[in-house]
Amino acid sequence: MGFFALEKTDGGARAGSLHTPHGRVATPAFMPVATQGSVKAVDPNDLRSLGAEMVLSNTYHLYLRPGIDVIRKMGGLHGFMRWDGPTLTDSGGYQGFSLAHLREITEDGIIFKSHLDGSLHTFTPEAVIDHQQGIGADVIMPLDMCVSSRSDRAEVELAVERTTRWAERSLGSHGVGDQALFGIVQGGLLADLRERSAEQITSLGFPGYAVGGLSVGETKAEMYAVTELVTRLLPADAPRYLMGVGSPEDLVECVARGIDMFDCVLPTRIARNGALFTRTGRVNIYTAPFKARERPIEAGCDCYTCRTFSAAYVHHLFRAKELLAFRLATIHNLRFVTRLMEEMRAAIQQGGFEAYRAAFNATFVPPDEDTRREQKRRWLAARKRPGSGG
Amino acid sequence: MGFFALEKTDGGARAGSLHTPHGRVATPAFMPVATQGSVKAVDPNDLRSLGAEMVLSNTYHLYLRPGIDVIRKMGGLHGFMRWDGPTLTDSGGYQGFSLAHLREITEDGIIFKSHLDGSLHTFTPEAVIDHQQGIGADVIMPLDMCVSSRSDRAEVELAVERTTRWAERSLGSHGVGDQALFGIVQGGLLADLRERSAEQITSLGFPGYAVGGLSVGETKAEMYAVTELVTRLLPADAPRYLMGVGSPEDLVECVARGIDMFDCVLPTRIARNGALFTRTGRVNIYTAPFKARERPIEAGCDCYTCRTFSAAYVHHLFRAKELLAFRLATIHNLRFVTRLMEEMRAAIQQGGFEAYRAAFNATFVPPDEDTRREQKRRWLAARKRPGSGG
Repeated sequence: MGFFALEKTDGGARAGSLHTPHGRVATPAFMPVATQGSVKAVDPNDLRSLGAEMVLSNTYHLYLRPGIDVIRKMGGLHGFMRWDGPTLTDSGGYQGFSLAHLREITEDGIIFKSHLDGSLHTFTPEAVIDHQQGIGADVIMPLDMCVSSRSDRAEVELAVERTTRWAERSLGSHGVGDQALFGIVQGGLLADLRERSAEQITSLGFPGYAVGGLSVGETKAEMYAVTELVTRLLPADAPRYLMGVGSPEDLVECVARGIDMFDCVLPTRIARNGALFTRTGRVNIYTAPFKARERPIEAGCDCYTCRTFSAAYVHHLFRAKELLAFRLATIHNLRFVTRLMEEMRAAIQQGGFEAYRAAFNATFVPPDEDTRREQKRRWLAARKRPGSGG
Repeated sequence: MGFFALEKTDGGARAGSLHTPHGRVATPAFMPVATQGSVKAVDPNDLRSLGAEMVLSNTYHLYLRPGIDVIRKMGGLHGFMRWDGPTLTDSGGYQGFSLAHLREITEDGIIFKSHLDGSLHTFTPEAVIDHQQGIGADVIMPLDMCVSSRSDRAEVELAVERTTRWAERSLGSHGVGDQALFGIVQGGLLADLRERSAEQITSLGFPGYAVGGLSVGETKAEMYAVTELVTRLLPADAPRYLMGVGSPEDLVECVARGIDMFDCVLPTRIARNGALFTRTGRVNIYTAPFKARERPIEAGCDCYTCRTFSAAYVHHLFRAKELLAFRLATIHNLRFVTRLMEEMRAAIQQGGFEAYRAAFNATFVPPDEDTRREQKRRWLAARKRPGSGG
């Protein structure tokens, strides 16, 4: 049995499964983000109950705290966070972009100034493989160079070429093991550089491929176009992972374009702000209509929160600043996107994906770009410190 | 079957059971505090799993937010918070003491200035019964006048006499119903006033009696002495409830003095600060010895947290400011005190309470008075707003 089995295609959409040392993952799959070894506000039982199969964690954060040695001593990430299912760790490459004020990038690697204590740490491709071997995730990522979608051609080209050189060094360092090392395609919004990167990375031969350098400032239309371009260049028999993408509308549109795996902090982050997903879009649970609503957040939702509590109670918990609010809202949003993946998978297997996509898009109204940008700006401004993630 | 069955006495200690419309409560019992309709950081399943049988909530807080009408519409407190076990609500009398800067007390009742918006609200004995009928707890408390243990004799005497007059008005207003209305004994640290209050309140006839006006500034020795004095004056066939007490050492010492029911925010509040109970006393999970400890917080603890996670993981969650920390720590401390009650009950039934008490006190080292006062002072100073409770 190989690492990935492609079970069905329906237009560009794919249903398949990953086979990892910690079990099977049905695809398309959404991975909740456990930046620091905990999906914020929920525990492993919650994750299993809501149908999550694979969890992502961040090498950069775990390396700084609690440290690779502690995690190794606790039996790796699985033992540390008591999640016995499949896991994936990123490489720190994204933090080389998002923490631009705290790093220097050279051909050798990325030198980070810790957001915790200001100490310096060099992330070479080889060191990053070593850290991830210590963490022990089922899927690991090579160090890559991620640039803004507004970067100039020279910078994007450097990112493409360097990402390939780092991928080669990562492969050389990784050797043989249970952990599946993916390749990452860069290239910004430039079609010829995306093609060059895809060709270079696929020629090296990885068990899976990630589309990097998206969700970094471009429009949704640009993101969808690049996703479609890249997936067409990737081999059909390997999973495609779109990094950092995870709004409901993006999940549907990118499954349509051949993506099999996603991760994103958005569902959990906005949940903690009281923004909850429904079939018609996001609602703000703080608002007056929910004050005395006996019904759940959404009729028909099978999440623990909606099966158990009224919308009025969740509204009250947020208003009263009760900690339980964060958990209940997080469970709802994670179940929403997990169920969306399950439904898309079923639709693909029945050859009905286009009908499913059309029905979803007919009712789900995402916030417009201006609203999204403003929300993100406010959230970033409210963060106490950089790199806290999640 | 009556409301309370006394099953066994062992010295001053008692084992019994309460029978309420929402089920039985084995006594002695500790009630976790759901100030605003949520035991902070945990949910009803957590409470059931850790063995909690009865939960306390605060009339004053629920009245202000979400409001009695909302709770009534959601099926009362049980329906609102989805706790189907026994419940108790206090009356607001304690907030008449703790929110002294936000209230005026007259013979008619207590006028509160809302800590949320500054609006004025009159809590008469009759209104408080009405609010609690709307909330629908199994046990309800009459409005009482609570004074500091440093109050002068005239003020304590006024509190005793007024508490009796308010108890009469409460009884007259309550009528017949499923809810058990308890009487409250006041009298500060003055033996003759405690005796007078106990005589007046017991002569009115209630299905249960509370010892009020303790844990309000007196020493532990004073609190134990008054508890012993009052329980000797109360009828044996009714439960005795010591309000606001709940450190492990106080639970043991006050069970020894004939108390059957307790509530306190201490186990949950200090949990959120990383202070965790063990058989030898409190430990601070933030500290370095826990950084790489594979063992649980305490060997032999049967709580979900200790059965599942290493101390190192809980330490990491606190250090990394992960929300899951609060839930795991709260579960541990609540299970600790719940198990303590279960063990004391078993010891009483076997006639071995004094040996249990001696063994507990031989190993459990509570913080000294100065440390406790300093911790409480710092906690109060750190609170963002008064009356947020829990």
